[in-house]
Amino acid sequence: MAKDKKLVEQITSRDADFAQWYTDVVTKAELIDYSSVKGFFVIRPYAYALWENIQQVLDTKFKALGHENVAMPVLIPESLLQKEKDHVEGFAPEVAWVTHGGEEKLAERMCVRPTSETLFCDHYAHIVHSWRDLPKLYNQWCSVLRWEKTTRPFLRHREFLWQEGHTLHATPEEAKAETMRMLEVYADLCENYLAMPVVRGRKTDKEKFAGAEATYTIECMMHDKKALQSGTSHYFGDGFAKAFEIQFLDKENKLRNPFQTSWGVSTRIIGGIIMTHGDDNGLILPPRVAPTQVIVVPVAAHKPNVNEKAQEIADCLKAAGIRVKADFSEQSPGWKFAEYEMKGVPLRIEVGPRDIENGVCVAVRRDDRSKTQIPFSELASAVPALLDEIHKAMYDKAKANLDANTFSATTLDEVKEIIATKGGFVKTMWCGDLECEMKFKEVAGVSSRCIPFEQEKISDTCPCCGKPADKMVVWAVAY
Amino acid sequence: MAKDKKLVEQITSRDADFAQWYTDVVTKAELIDYSSVKGFFVIRPYAYALWENIQQVLDTKFKALGHENVAMPVLIPESLLQKEKDHVEGFAPEVAWVTHGGEEKLAERMCVRPTSETLFCDHYAHIVHSWRDLPKLYNQWCSVLRWEKTTRPFLRHREFLWQEGHTLHATPEEAKAETMRMLEVYADLCENYLAMPVVRGRKTDKEKFAGAEATYTIECMMHDKKALQSGTSHYFGDGFAKAFEIQFLDKENKLRNPFQTSWGVSTRIIGGIIMTHGDDNGLILPPRVAPTQVIVVPVAAHKPNVNEKAQEIADCLKAAGIRVKADFSEQSPGWKFAEYEMKGVPLRIEVGPRDIENGVCVAVRRDDRSKTQIPFSELASAVPALLDEIHKAMYDKAKANLDANTFSATTLDEVKEIIATKGGFVKTMWCGDLECEMKFKEVAGVSSRCIPFEQEKISDTCPCCGKPADKMVVWAVAY
Repeated sequence: MAKDKKLVEQITSRDADFAQWYTDVVTKAELIDYSSVKGFFVIRPYAYALWENIQQVLDTKFKALGHENVAMPVLIPESLLQKEKDHVEGFAPEVAWVTHGGEEKLAERMCVRPTSETLFCDHYAHIVHSWRDLPKLYNQWCSVLRWEKTTRPFLRHREFLWQEGHTLHATPEEAKAETMRMLEVYADLCENYLAMPVVRGRKTDKEKFAGAEATYTIECMMHDKKALQSGTSHYFGDGFAKAFEIQFLDKENKLRNPFQTSWGVSTRIIGGIIMTHGDDNGLILPPRVAPTQVIVVPVAAHKPNVNEKAQEIADCLKAAGIRVKADFSEQSPGWKFAEYEMKGVPLRIEVGPRDIENGVCVAVRRDDRSKTQIPFSELASAVPALLDEIHKAMYDKAKANLDANTFSATTLDEVKEIIATKGGFVKTMWCGDLECEMKFKEVAGVSSRCIPFEQEKISDTCPCCGKPADKMVVWAVAY
Repeated sequence: MAKDKKLVEQITSRDADFAQWYTDVVTKAELIDYSSVKGFFVIRPYAYALWENIQQVLDTKFKALGHENVAMPVLIPESLLQKEKDHVEGFAPEVAWVTHGGEEKLAERMCVRPTSETLFCDHYAHIVHSWRDLPKLYNQWCSVLRWEKTTRPFLRHREFLWQEGHTLHATPEEAKAETMRMLEVYADLCENYLAMPVVRGRKTDKEKFAGAEATYTIECMMHDKKALQSGTSHYFGDGFAKAFEIQFLDKENKLRNPFQTSWGVSTRIIGGIIMTHGDDNGLILPPRVAPTQVIVVPVAAHKPNVNEKAQEIADCLKAAGIRVKADFSEQSPGWKFAEYEMKGVPLRIEVGPRDIENGVCVAVRRDDRSKTQIPFSELASAVPALLDEIHKAMYDKAKANLDANTFSATTLDEVKEIIATKGGFVKTMWCGDLECEMKFKEVAGVSSRCIPFEQEKISDTCPCCGKPADKMVVWAVAY
C-alpha cells in the first residue's frame, strides 16, 4: 500500500544500517527525545509506560520474595565513596561531582550516585546489630549517573533508570543463594515476559563489578548478533561489611560481619527489546509488557455501527484484562496500520461493515502479520490466547537466532574469522589468565561475556596460550 | 500495662514537646534514618510503603484523567534554568551545582533539578507544533533537591520525593481548568484517603511559585494547630512558553504560544499524616493508605489451634483485599500491642483460646482503642466496614480540631493575641498590599496561608492599614 510504503521509507532498513535503524525506531516510535542536556535523554510516555510494566513485573516478584523498597540519598560524599578501595577505583572516574550547594562551596564534594552500595552499607551499619535484624532485603527504584563519553538511547545514558537490590545476610551461603535467586528472577523476566532467551553465567574477574567477589550475568543476543548484558547479580562476601564496619551479634553472642549482595536491571533492557524483536516496520513489543497490547481500528468508520462495534470490542477486551485502545481519529486505516506497526503493538483488530454482518473481526499479528478471523463471541478467550502465541513465537524466533549464531572454536584465528564473517557468540576454552582474555579483544575484537553455567568441553587447551583449560567462555562483540 | 508503659515512655508526649514527639515517632516507628549525608534522609521501608500507597492513589487518578508519566534529566544546565527570569531568581539560591563530570571540569555548570519546569518546556518546544499536539498532560515521579539550611524529617529535606505534573494547553481557560482540577485531586487525596480536612485557596503574590501567574494550595491544620501546605497547583499563563519559544499552529493556521500548568505533592505529606493523627502512643495511620491495615496477634499462642486460627483470619482478610499481617514472633502479646500501636496500624485483631471457643475474635481500633467482638463468619464484611469507620472518625476528629481552632479577627493585636494564646488559623480581611502582609509576619509571626475559595466578610477594612478590603485571608504559623 502506498501509504504504508511512505511511512516505512522513513526508517532505515535493519540490514542496510542497524545502528541507524535503531536510532530511527527510538525517535519515530516516540520512545526518546534528545534533551538539551548533553548525554541525557527524555524518556517519553510510550517508553516510560513500557518501563512501568517491566517495573510492575519485577516489583511484584521482589515483594513476593520478601524484598522491601527504600529511598537513599542521591548524593554520596567523597569520603563515603572511598571506603571500599576497589569500588572507588571502578566508579570515581565516571561520576558527576557536586561542589556547591546554594551559594556556598561544599566542605567536601559529593558525587551524584553511580550506584548505591556505599549508601546502603552506611545505613546498614546504623540499623543492623543482631542476627535478628538479618536478612535485610532492600531494593531501590531510582536513577543513577555515569559520565559516559559516548551515549546512545537506552544503551548508554549519562543518567539511566534502574532498580538496585542490596541485601545483607548472616552467612555466605545465604548471600550466595540470594545472588543466584535474583539472577533467576532476571532470567525469568527476560524469557517469560520480554521473550528474550538468555545465557546465564559468571563474569570473569576482568568484567566483574567493582568491589564484588563474583558477578553473575544474563547475556542476550541482539538481531545483529551482538551481545547485550541484560541484568547482573553480585556477591560481595564481607568486603563491604568490613570496610563499613557492619557488625552483628550472632546467636552465640559473637560479633561478626554479614555477607552482602547487589543486583540490578536498568532501562538498558528496553534497548534489548528493540534490538531483539524489531523489524523494518518498526518496533515489535512483547505482549506481556506492551503498553498497548491490542489496537482496534475501525474500517469504513463512516458506515453505520462501525465505530460503535469497535468501541464494543475494546470494552469487551478491557473487561478481559487486556490493555487495549481503539483509534477513532480521522487518519486513514492505512495510516493507522503503519503507525501501530511502527509502535510495535502486538495485535491489531480491524472491524468494518462486512465483518459486522458476518459477526467477526480480523486480528492481525504484528510479529508475522498473519490474519485470523475471530467471532465477536470468542474475543475474550481468543485474544489472550493469540497474545500468548505471539509471545511464544517471538521467543522461539529469538532463540533460533541465538542458536544459529552460537559457534565453537579452538583457535584464536577461528574466533576472529567467525566474528569477521558471521558475528555471533563464540564458545572457547580459557585458561583463566587475564593476558589471554585481553588477547581475544586484541585479535578478534571480542570481550568475554560470561563463563556459562552450562559448560561444555570444546577442547583441552586455551586457544591463546595452549595451556590446559577447563573453563568454557562465551565471547562476543557487546553493546 | 507495664510493658505498654515502658515502650510509651520512650517517646515524648505531644503536649510536653511536639517537636521532640515528632522526632521520636519518625525514628521509633522506623520511618526515617538520618543518613551520613547532611540534610538527607533514608526513607525506610515502612515509610516508603506508605509513600507507594499514596503514589498508587494519585497515579491511578492521574491516568484516569489522561496524564502520562515521563522521565526528564536530573540535571539542568545553568543557561536553561536562566531562561525564565522569575523562576531562576526563585530557585538559583537553593540549588546544588555539578561542576565536574568524570575527571573534567564542565564547560557549563548544571544544577540538580529543584523542579523541572525548564526541562519540560525545553522538551515541549521540541515536540509541540500543531493544535493537534495539545493538550500535553505529563507527570513525573522523581526526587528533587533544594539546599535547605535547616532540615526536618519529611517536612524539609535537601532531597525529597514528589510528583510534578506539567501540562500544556491551547487556551488559558483550559489551562486554568486543569489547575483547579488537579488541586481538587489533591484535596480528594487528603480528605478521602489521608483523613485530612483541607482549606482550599489561592496564594498571595508573595507566596506564589517562582514564575507562576497564580498558585493554588490546600492547607491542613496539624495537631499543634500550625499549618502545613499539603499540595500546590500553579497556573503559568504563557510566560514560560514565550521564554522557551513553545509555539503551535492553531486551527486557523496562526502561530501561538500555549498555556501551562504545574502541580505537585511530595513526601512532605507524610509529615502531615504524622502530625495530624499521631498520639502519645505513636503513629495513627489512615486505613486507606496504611501499609498494614490489620495486624493479627495470637494470644496464648502456645495453646492448641491459636496460631492456626490467627493464620486463618489473616488469610480470610487477605482474600477480602485487606493488607493484613499476622505476627507469630516470640515477643509477648503486650509487646506486640505496643509495637503496632507505635506503628499506627489502624486495626488489631486478637485471638486466643476462649475466643476460638466462642467463634469470635476481638478487634481493637488504633484511633480510639475501642474493642469489638467479631464472629469469624463476619470478618470479611465487618473489617472493611470498621476500617471505613476509622477513616471517618479520624477525619471528623481532624475537622473538629480545624474548626475549633479557626478564628476571626479584625485587628492586628487580636491576631497576635490569638496566635500567642491559642494558636490556629486566623481569618481577617486584607487590602492586597505586600506591606500589610509583611506586617502580619512582623507583629503576629504569621504568614498568609491562602485566600480561601470560600470567602466571608469579616469586616470592611484591612486590619493593618485601615483601607477598604474585600479579600479574606487565612493566616497561621506554618511548617
